[in-house]
Amino acid sequence: MFGDPALADGVSFFPMKSARYAIVVAAGSGKRMGAPLPKQFLEVKGKPLLMHTLMRLHEFDASINVLLVLHPDYFSYWKEQVMRHAFQLPHTIIAGGEERFHSVKCALDAIEDMKAIVGIHDGVRPMVSVETLTRCFDAAEEFGNAVPVVPVNDSLREISENGNHGVDRSRYRIVQTPQCFRVNLLKQAFNSPFHSSFTDDASVFESNGNTIHLVEGNRDNLKITTPEDLRLLESMLVGS
Amino acid sequence: MFGDPALADGVSFFPMKSARYAIVVAAGSGKRMGAPLPKQFLEVKGKPLLMHTLMRLHEFDASINVLLVLHPDYFSYWKEQVMRHAFQLPHTIIAGGEERFHSVKCALDAIEDMKAIVGIHDGVRPMVSVETLTRCFDAAEEFGNAVPVVPVNDSLREISENGNHGVDRSRYRIVQTPQCFRVNLLKQAFNSPFHSSFTDDASVFESNGNTIHLVEGNRDNLKITTPEDLRLLESMLVGS
Repeated sequence: MFGDPALADGVSFFPMKSARYAIVVAAGSGKRMGAPLPKQFLEVKGKPLLMHTLMRLHEFDASINVLLVLHPDYFSYWKEQVMRHAFQLPHTIIAGGEERFHSVKCALDAIEDMKAIVGIHDGVRPMVSVETLTRCFDAAEEFGNAVPVVPVNDSLREISENGNHGVDRSRYRIVQTPQCFRVNLLKQAFNSPFHSSFTDDASVFESNGNTIHLVEGNRDNLKITTPEDLRLLESMLVGS
Repeated sequence: MFGDPALADGVSFFPMKSARYAIVVAAGSGKRMGAPLPKQFLEVKGKPLLMHTLMRLHEFDASINVLLVLHPDYFSYWKEQVMRHAFQLPHTIIAGGEERFHSVKCALDAIEDMKAIVGIHDGVRPMVSVETLTRCFDAAEEFGNAVPVVPVNDSLREISENGNHGVDRSRYRIVQTPQCFRVNLLKQAFNSPFHSSFTDDASVFESNGNTIHLVEGNRDNLKITTPEDLRLLESMLVGS
């Protein structure tokens, strides 16, 4: 119906998509929640938050290769949870480093396919939509990188030495994850030494001279950081 | 037990608090929701969103004077809703102007007590906490103004002519309402001609040479702007 791809001068009509990896960063100690258990392990609707995140990635692409970065102190805890919940989705556990930068670098070292697209995703963002995941991975395939953002809906003020002043919020975007990159390009960027300005993977990539390609995120793709967020999440997952 | 205030050189031990006003801005046409009804009137848990907001203000201070700014097209609609829900909380209806600036100015003109504290609050922020309201009104009493803010939890990027670049999010704050002011000071600021940089009342106040005093808001004090927000709100109001 579409003709024989093999006849078209060796160029396939069905271009091969790059392999897809997801590095799920969940090595935090969760101090901010004031709870004994790091927040990625807190149970929401009967499952650790992190399982909801992995389920969403699998819903997006059942063949995605998931690298889950945990603090080694929680390896056995996680394995127990996987058993207890009979959690079936395949994933590889990676030992995290001191900072997010080091955690991502550890996971990146485990990826050999230089042409693959890797999405780096916060373990505590289970509400990322399949549409956002699709936009990010597709745009990274085309542009080499893609970072999901949403507009700033509230007024914004900047703190300075002398006080604070209003800024034009339409000039700013709130950054989410997954931040997606062609593996070879990201590996180059992560060869730089760590710097405290690296608050996310886009900032590492940018510091290496790259331009960040922004795509639309989804507004309810919250990073679960406070008890209020957890309460929000619980209610948002009611229908799912 | 605390002594007789009248004996202390005429200085009362129980300083009189200023009268309190709330200007609730709800004159928007709600175009962004894609719904026929402006979002402040959408029903959540059996009541228009706006009634939840007024109830929260009353919970904070039962003696607060509420000025509700509506578009004149919705005066009769609102009165019907008040009847239908047997809504008892006292409030004065004010006709809104073209922009938020003009709406607030109309309401401000109706306040004669120059020493009062007025809090200007978005009609679509029903989740403001009593603690935030208390912090704002108390700080405005002391400093002449108070604006509630929360930290930026996600990475932030700034859009420029040549693309976009990461900024240090710790230097920014997200602004909420109520924005509280001593009435005489705010009236002075609102004598300025309208400017498109006036995105909130703090920016008007600041343009008049005043310094903004920031206080802590509450993170779930969301401005209901999108259908996702409305869904969030519905679930957050479950327990209340």
